[in-house]
Amino acid sequence: MLPAPPDCSFSSDNAAGVLPAVIDALAAANVGPATAYGDDPWTQRCVATFRELFDAPIGVSLCWGGTGANVVALATMLRPWQAVICPSGAHINVDECGAPERFTGCKLIDLPAPDGKLRPEQIIEVCSGEHSFHHVEPAVVSITQSTESGTLYTAAEIAELCEVAHRFGLLVHLDGARIANATAALGGDVRSFTIDAGVDVVTFGGTKAGMMYGEAVLHLRPELGDRVDVFRKQAGQLPSKMRFVAAQFEALLAEDRWIAAATRANRSATVLAEAAGSIPGVELSSPPEVNAVFARLPRPAIEALQAWSFFWDWDMSVNEVRWMTHFATTTDDIDRFVAGVRAAVADASA
Amino acid sequence: MLPAPPDCSFSSDNAAGVLPAVIDALAAANVGPATAYGDDPWTQRCVATFRELFDAPIGVSLCWGGTGANVVALATMLRPWQAVICPSGAHINVDECGAPERFTGCKLIDLPAPDGKLRPEQIIEVCSGEHSFHHVEPAVVSITQSTESGTLYTAAEIAELCEVAHRFGLLVHLDGARIANATAALGGDVRSFTIDAGVDVVTFGGTKAGMMYGEAVLHLRPELGDRVDVFRKQAGQLPSKMRFVAAQFEALLAEDRWIAAATRANRSATVLAEAAGSIPGVELSSPPEVNAVFARLPRPAIEALQAWSFFWDWDMSVNEVRWMTHFATTTDDIDRFVAGVRAAVADASA
Amino acid sequence: MLPAPPDCSFSSDNAAGVLPAVIDALAAANVGPATAYGDDPWTQRCVATFRELFDAPIGVSLCWGGTGANVVALATMLRPWQAVICPSGAHINVDECGAPERFTGCKLIDLPAPDGKLRPEQIIEVCSGEHSFHHVEPAVVSITQSTESGTLYTAAEIAELCEVAHRFGLLVHLDGARIANATAALGGDVRSFTIDAGVDVVTFGGTKAGMMYGEAVLHLRPELGDRVDVFRKQAGQLPSKMRFVAAQFEALLAEDRWIAAATRANRSATVLAEAAGSIPGVELSSPPEVNAVFARLPRPAIEALQAWSFFWDWDMSVNEVRWMTHFATTTDDIDRFVAGVRAAVADASA
Amino acid sequence: MLPAPPDCSFSSDNAAGVLPAVIDALAAANVGPATAYGDDPWTQRCVATFRELFDAPIGVSLCWGGTGANVVALATMLRPWQAVICPSGAHINVDECGAPERFTGCKLIDLPAPDGKLRPEQIIEVCSGEHSFHHVEPAVVSITQSTESGTLYTAAEIAELCEVAHRFGLLVHLDGARIANATAALGGDVRSFTIDAGVDVVTFGGTKAGMMYGEAVLHLRPELGDRVDVFRKQAGQLPSKMRFVAAQFEALLAEDRWIAAATRANRSATVLAEAAGSIPGVELSSPPEVNAVFARLPRPAIEALQAWSFFWDWDMSVNEVRWMTHFATTTDDIDRFVAGVRAAVADASA
Repeated sequence: MLPAPPDCSFSSDNAAGVLPAVIDALAAANVGPATAYGDDPWTQRCVATFRELFDAPIGVSLCWGGTGANVVALATMLRPWQAVICPSGAHINVDECGAPERFTGCKLIDLPAPDGKLRPEQIIEVCSGEHSFHHVEPAVVSITQSTESGTLYTAAEIAELCEVAHRFGLLVHLDGARIANATAALGGDVRSFTIDAGVDVVTFGGTKAGMMYGEAVLHLRPELGDRVDVFRKQAGQLPSKMRFVAAQFEALLAEDRWIAAATRANRSATVLAEAAGSIPGVELSSPPEVNAVFARLPRPAIEALQAWSFFWDWDMSVNEVRWMTHFATTTDDIDRFVAGVRAAVADASA
Repeated sequence: MLPAPPDCSFSSDNAAGVLPAVIDALAAANVGPATAYGDDPWTQRCVATFRELFDAPIGVSLCWGGTGANVVALATMLRPWQAVICPSGAHINVDECGAPERFTGCKLIDLPAPDGKLRPEQIIEVCSGEHSFHHVEPAVVSITQSTESGTLYTAAEIAELCEVAHRFGLLVHLDGARIANATAALGGDVRSFTIDAGVDVVTFGGTKAGMMYGEAVLHLRPELGDRVDVFRKQAGQLPSKMRFVAAQFEALLAEDRWIAAATRANRSATVLAEAAGSIPGVELSSPPEVNAVFARLPRPAIEALQAWSFFWDWDMSVNEVRWMTHFATTTDDIDRFVAGVRAAVADASA
Repeated sequence: MLPAPPDCSFSSDNAAGVLPAVIDALAAANVGPATAYGDDPWTQRCVATFRELFDAPIGVSLCWGGTGANVVALATMLRPWQAVICPSGAHINVDECGAPERFTGCKLIDLPAPDGKLRPEQIIEVCSGEHSFHHVEPAVVSITQSTESGTLYTAAEIAELCEVAHRFGLLVHLDGARIANATAALGGDVRSFTIDAGVDVVTFGGTKAGMMYGEAVLHLRPELGDRVDVFRKQAGQLPSKMRFVAAQFEALLAEDRWIAAATRANRSATVLAEAAGSIPGVELSSPPEVNAVFARLPRPAIEALQAWSFFWDWDMSVNEVRWMTHFATTTDDIDRFVAGVRAAVADASA
Repeated sequence: MLPAPPDCSFSSDNAAGVLPAVIDALAAANVGPATAYGDDPWTQRCVATFRELFDAPIGVSLCWGGTGANVVALATMLRPWQAVICPSGAHINVDECGAPERFTGCKLIDLPAPDGKLRPEQIIEVCSGEHSFHHVEPAVVSITQSTESGTLYTAAEIAELCEVAHRFGLLVHLDGARIANATAALGGDVRSFTIDAGVDVVTFGGTKAGMMYGEAVLHLRPELGDRVDVFRKQAGQLPSKMRFVAAQFEALLAEDRWIAAATRANRSATVLAEAAGSIPGVELSSPPEVNAVFARLPRPAIEALQAWSFFWDWDMSVNEVRWMTHFATTTDDIDRFVAGVRAAVADASA
């Protein structure tokens, strides 16, 4: 018998709403006219804010959503005979319905990565040996930070991947849909694992961080983005009333709100993991590094809980599930969810 | 010597902000969690609202922007050896940076249309005669209502185009980026020139009508949209926090707000046309049918005015320019703009 | 009552077989092994022959067929946001089933050209004015020599087109499916209207000139072809046993056989035009410039003749048809065909 | 010190020339005109021959080359949101420079297959579980027979793969670039492992079997090929003088010449394997099943031999190389090659 479910779903960090400061910024930006497509003061300020954050004259291209922004980022880095090396579980490989291939025409070379993290030796193996016109040419390494498996690369690990990639003439893309969670977990310095580590292009996530919509493609090496405007337009990622994306990013980045919100999300995952992990019959896959908890529990308990408050299976072969927290997850949500898990596992073992 | 410029630009209807009711709806929708990707009550209500508006069980797919929504709409109607017949000046042909070709791989067959309107006999000419595997197969007719030239099709004209298209086995797409302006101008009955006239798929514009972002792809023949979900995802047009698009459409469509706002925009164009058209040296191309005014004036006056308050050249060979109004254009904006035109033309002829 | 039809169809120059020297060369090349994909002595000699013909260190890429070779040529000249300017009747625009768009993702901007020839002022008009990221960027001008309408550009006309194209930063592609006929008609100097005139990339036709199969993409500016190998492979245009394409080109180009064969084809068109044009009721559209005759005759005569010995309608609205000759057309074929035309027209007017 | 190298390379079965009967057939087909693009008696007879071979009214589409034919075959089986399941080492995955992704826009899901063969349980694993619009939809299983690793599926193994694929709603494509070698090795009955086993579409290889050029896409379920003509045209795979492809296939298939030639090739591999495998220091990876020999030998010997008579590395990490035989490999070639291997290995161990 399960208790009342939590208000807030643990299915996805997209299930959250929007930070109050973001809503306020949207209302505040709705004053008078503004030239469309980014030629407005909000966008100019937003670009300046990103440049300050990265302490460099980077390219900043505001886009609608995560899949689209990744496609735009990759399109600027690829010619049609080239390929992207990525981990098997990468969002671009499994969760974008083939959009990267469809739009760029390029192949993804996906490599096994049980913990979501690519290793330098994997790049070396793919890039060693001769390439001829019979084969696609690896040109981009794409990594996700934090990964789809809830893990983190250290800044040193990313620096080593970049060093290896650049040695073979490849560029490095970082899918930062959860870059806020990663930055918070790594101490708040986003430069350390991006521009300082040698990353070339970043998809900087706004939506999961607390915005209503909006992602930024950042060309840390600005010359790579010299034609990003045409790719963004072609990919259907050019917001016409762009000031409203820019205003959200300004609000998010101001006063380190993105770090604070992500810290809350990460802490909720830790609290959830500790509470749920102490329940007999529940086994954590590993301690959470950011805002995802991966746990294994009996199949009947999984099914009962999913019907009660939905979340996703992760690896059905080992009865592993994924629980996501976000900035709006409350202590009460966690308490109720843990109570449900406890009850469901008890029922399953009864 | 030009007076103070208007607050509001006449360059584009995208220069407007957002209707107050839309901002309120966004704030109101930010309560608690909601399942991502459209499985939420706001989206369900929005779909129901559109079905009520069209009085039919149509398919409703919320998207981010106009180019993306057009691409999604066309992708659902085309196989890769097929082609789209459209007027030369169609947005899909000239203002989407080749996105339709890039995404669908299909050809656009663009036909001359000096007033922006396709004629039935043009379809007949293209579709008559034999087609073989050497040639693309015309499969879709795409029209824009109101057109990029500021004109309107009557419901009867659209019905005749649909009849001809269907006779040859083609489907009809209506790009309704300004469907609100068209509906207001045609008496308020959107069904009359869409579903009742035989149109198959509509891109229903929200942004120019007063929303912050969001367009809807409507499959008036719902079976055509049976795989729209994969095309929307692949085209990067799937809003993750979809409730916020849905909430905007609900607010826009409620209490005929979209009609009222478009009526204001259209009326502003009429007022502007009458005032500017009476200035010696300014010649209107035709009386405005919706919210666009096309006028011819001396080149020096054009350049002085563009530097003062930007708007677009339309046909440089005849010194024709385009002035757009929108729901937020004020009487004061028009007065100031007309005063500027009067002064610039006087200066030019001095 | 029609006489016995000719052995040889006047429907297409592809209806011909193969020059005897080509068949001999194929048999002669079938001695022992050869490394696949072009690393063989035949291909090396063929490349040298082309370089001698053009008196320059051009890039030479042997391909299977005409559509494929055009696609490879264009792919090397285009980035995905760019466009090709071409005449409306261009083979790439109407006879390749959209292959250029499908493979490159680029738009074709087709311009009216009643005689098949693009004019410099058309390029100027398209390229003048501002381009923004909303619009595709014209990057290539593609012309056909001799044209699909049976006409010829003079060397001076091509030079002027190239000068204008280059002035606006565009490259020039010449579709030379019938470059042999053009060269023969223009006095035998292929350099005069290609490399000397400023053309950048040529599709050099072998099939219509008397080969069994095989076309060559020639990068007259060799640096443009630096990645042609990957495009050729991706486009499915890489002959594995390439020596057999190379051997054919060697045989074709040796002893000016291609010029001699094309001269015969062109002369047959002249003979046919004079004989048919003297028949009352038959009106030539213009004197033939290469190996195509365009004539107008009564619709019943057209239909009777097509059933008797097939050829293609050209412009049904004016009862215009196209008759093609080729290197194997005989005097007897022409005599019989003209007799048939005479009889059919007489029947039609009876 | 190496002896004189063999005349014939062991690098590829494409290094062979053409069967004498094929050359004769080409010369014989060069009599008089024939309608282009397949509307000719040779093509009609060729289609009839294939239908007789498969004892069914199959679709037969003649194409230029292997990569192109595979692309055409796959394009007829896929919609743009779908995916192809194939072994990692599949030609379509590693040796076609991304042509399938570039042309179809679809993803390849490549699965590990150390011996080149896909297993039914791999299909089951990929296809089990839920699919949503976030993920590509597996729609085709593509296998190669004989495989790129020189192995063979039994007819029963293919039947089981087809049964599993069909159970999940997928179609099965068989890349038969070496279908002649497979048929010869499996006793001469091509139907047993294709149409009788449930395969839907076959790429039937002519080039490696002894033709100059030409492959056939066979739609064993003819309704799948109802639009193959447009895909073949778009993919640049439509031979204009098609009679010359048809005539080659007729000659190849007549009197079981393809079986006889492949039997010779396969036997040469067995002879080579036995002779080379008995050399101390040379280890065969496995006994040859068709016309490929995979062997491991010291790295210095490999490099000396490649400089002497080129062949390809297969797996550099274990010093494995690949030697291919073909219908024209002679006993003398094998003797000389084995003598070279013996000498090089001796040198390496000296």
